[in-house]
Amino acid sequence: MALIVQKFGGTSVGSIERIEQVAEKVKKHREAGDDLVVVLSAMSGETNRLIDLAKQITDQPVPRELDVIVSTGEQVTIALLTMALIKRGVPAVSYTGNQVRILTDSSHNKARILQIDDQKIRADLKEGRVVVVAGFQGVDEHGSITTLGRGGSDTTGVALAAALKADECQIYTDVDGVYTTDPRVVPQAQRLEKITFEEMLEMASLGSKVLQIRSVEFAGKYNVPLRVLHSFKEGPGTLITIDEEESMEQPIISGIAFNRDEAKLTIRGVPDTPGVAFKILGPISASNIEVDMIVQNVAHDNTTDFTFTVHRNEYEKAQNVLENTAREIGAREVIGDTKIAKVSIVGVGMRSHAGVASRMFEALAKESINIQMISTSEIKVSVVIEEKYLELAVRALHTAFELDAPARQGE
Amino acid sequence: MALIVQKFGGTSVGSIERIEQVAEKVKKHREAGDDLVVVLSAMSGETNRLIDLAKQITDQPVPRELDVIVSTGEQVTIALLTMALIKRGVPAVSYTGNQVRILTDSSHNKARILQIDDQKIRADLKEGRVVVVAGFQGVDEHGSITTLGRGGSDTTGVALAAALKADECQIYTDVDGVYTTDPRVVPQAQRLEKITFEEMLEMASLGSKVLQIRSVEFAGKYNVPLRVLHSFKEGPGTLITIDEEESMEQPIISGIAFNRDEAKLTIRGVPDTPGVAFKILGPISASNIEVDMIVQNVAHDNTTDFTFTVHRNEYEKAQNVLENTAREIGAREVIGDTKIAKVSIVGVGMRSHAGVASRMFEALAKESINIQMISTSEIKVSVVIEEKYLELAVRALHTAFELDAPARQGE
Repeated sequence: MALIVQKFGGTSVGSIERIEQVAEKVKKHREAGDDLVVVLSAMSGETNRLIDLAKQITDQPVPRELDVIVSTGEQVTIALLTMALIKRGVPAVSYTGNQVRILTDSSHNKARILQIDDQKIRADLKEGRVVVVAGFQGVDEHGSITTLGRGGSDTTGVALAAALKADECQIYTDVDGVYTTDPRVVPQAQRLEKITFEEMLEMASLGSKVLQIRSVEFAGKYNVPLRVLHSFKEGPGTLITIDEEESMEQPIISGIAFNRDEAKLTIRGVPDTPGVAFKILGPISASNIEVDMIVQNVAHDNTTDFTFTVHRNEYEKAQNVLENTAREIGAREVIGDTKIAKVSIVGVGMRSHAGVASRMFEALAKESINIQMISTSEIKVSVVIEEKYLELAVRALHTAFELDAPARQGE
Repeated sequence: MALIVQKFGGTSVGSIERIEQVAEKVKKHREAGDDLVVVLSAMSGETNRLIDLAKQITDQPVPRELDVIVSTGEQVTIALLTMALIKRGVPAVSYTGNQVRILTDSSHNKARILQIDDQKIRADLKEGRVVVVAGFQGVDEHGSITTLGRGGSDTTGVALAAALKADECQIYTDVDGVYTTDPRVVPQAQRLEKITFEEMLEMASLGSKVLQIRSVEFAGKYNVPLRVLHSFKEGPGTLITIDEEESMEQPIISGIAFNRDEAKLTIRGVPDTPGVAFKILGPISASNIEVDMIVQNVAHDNTTDFTFTVHRNEYEKAQNVLENTAREIGAREVIGDTKIAKVSIVGVGMRSHAGVASRMFEALAKESINIQMISTSEIKVSVVIEEKYLELAVRALHTAFELDAPARQGE
């Protein structure tokens, strides 16, 4: 008999009909003998509806009060699912974040979980009840309601699984697992049976939207086996876990991630003096703009070019800051480009295989795709290319790293 | 500087625009120097929407879980009003029933308040904050959310006022006070400046729907001065308080209440033996049917007739029970009438004035209205008449007891 935490997102509980379906699913699992803790999001659209209400009062809602409103979304779904379970003869009880006592810090709208009291839940499980917990919310030491920020329900699931030392945390979504890449771009993309936390983190941070980064970090930190499954289709999904055995068959690359969220800024003709990187990036970070990739070219005629990427939403803001800096330090010009894309290959296998990057560059060169920037980490290589080549690049890499092959299934 | 508890109902916070209006009103009061605790209901319609959601899952929602859902209605309005106040530069904070700690028993959907912790509220008032509290809800000793049942927000207001020893509990509604009778029936009806708790209780129990009976009982018990006011019109409203001075000018009758909610049942030809009343009413109360007026006629030929009224919704149920009883005790027949109305005159003044009842009967006789049943208490006389005469009777009594006279204003 295992202890499983199951998390269902907003679309999975988006209507009464779907809540009934989730209840059926939970009932079947329960009857199979597992102890179950179910974490729910608000009905899809509900959180936005609640935020809109607040925005009608003020553009800048007080964070504490916004949490009071927004947390009602999950409060409704947990009670509805609990009713649906009890109707089916499955003993169940609902808890808000406050009732469990999911203690968080006081950073309203983006709180972090500090501690979870597992006493009530353990007592209920012992009594044979399914425990239905509101995701995304907690309570601070003053008794104020907090929310964990968007996607926080995944984090609640993982944190509960860690606190309860659950055997698995299952995240039910609208996809049936993690794929080698986005199947809308590469039809031959395949579901992965397994992926490591590290890889999943890279995939998520690079734009694969199956799981929230924070929940994967959390799961990795506490070594909670995480499984991504489809809410309404049967199937094993993808297990995200530690890299237990470095099997021979392990592929070099697990997946290909990409995003169109970034924009590129270059400051040209910068006098090449020590500390120039700080002079350029200091004002950017002081403006709360996050920088992703950074490249500084070799100096030439005592001047250098400096390029970095930011989120597209912050492109104009960054450009303004950079133009001020250019005037101050006597740089020649600032140029920018929003029509870029980032493509990354990810895999723990590349640790033990040399030449992965050059194989990537070769594949892109074959398609005459020019690489504008490169950045590497232990388990990924990212390149920035012109946006229009994005799909072509992803397909070429998917083939080059033999991810198309059906032989990979059931590895 | 006074401490005032202000309660706004569902229509007063039924839209963002109205919440802004309430915020304006609260701000003005605050600027006048009073300490304010504001109690809110859910936006009108919201509680029903939430109950409907639950009913889509099951006809008989688990009471504990229904409270989890329904309590979100007020949770949204308290945060919205708090935001609207802060936007206006008025420091404010919201509390759910659980956060205040309004401790109730565990009778979900109809819980009773046991105790209120006033520490947080007092601390906030001291800091100059307006405290916005969710009405209608509390928490039981196990930490489960409870609701007080329909209209419970008034009770929350009064209970808070009692706990805080507030100078006044103001109930804002869609009428500008308590009237001598329903102005839709008698256009000359007048707003009362003052009315006693006892009178208000009788008015409420007799069908005047301005305030919930429980809140008036509560206010009377703890001697909390209660004021009924219009949410959006200026005016002094009606003060409900103890009967401090029996002034000379005090009217004999304060108001005329009426309702069409009852139906009449008569069991005829009952053998007149001791204990017959219990034999008849025992099975009725065992079926959880509440009986209002009861009349037993003098025995005649060793049989008697026995008449009582029940709520119209329970008429058929009561009729079935009564027909069984009739067979058992050998009564002649059961007859019933749903086309009745109850009209009552209410006033503490009648304690010291003889002949009030006869004046009432005279006024009705003048209009040829037949009285079917009579019941009296220390401060009221009720009669049951044919429903079609209801308006005529109320108008005749309003005039007979000089309630039409404009001289009563500013008494």
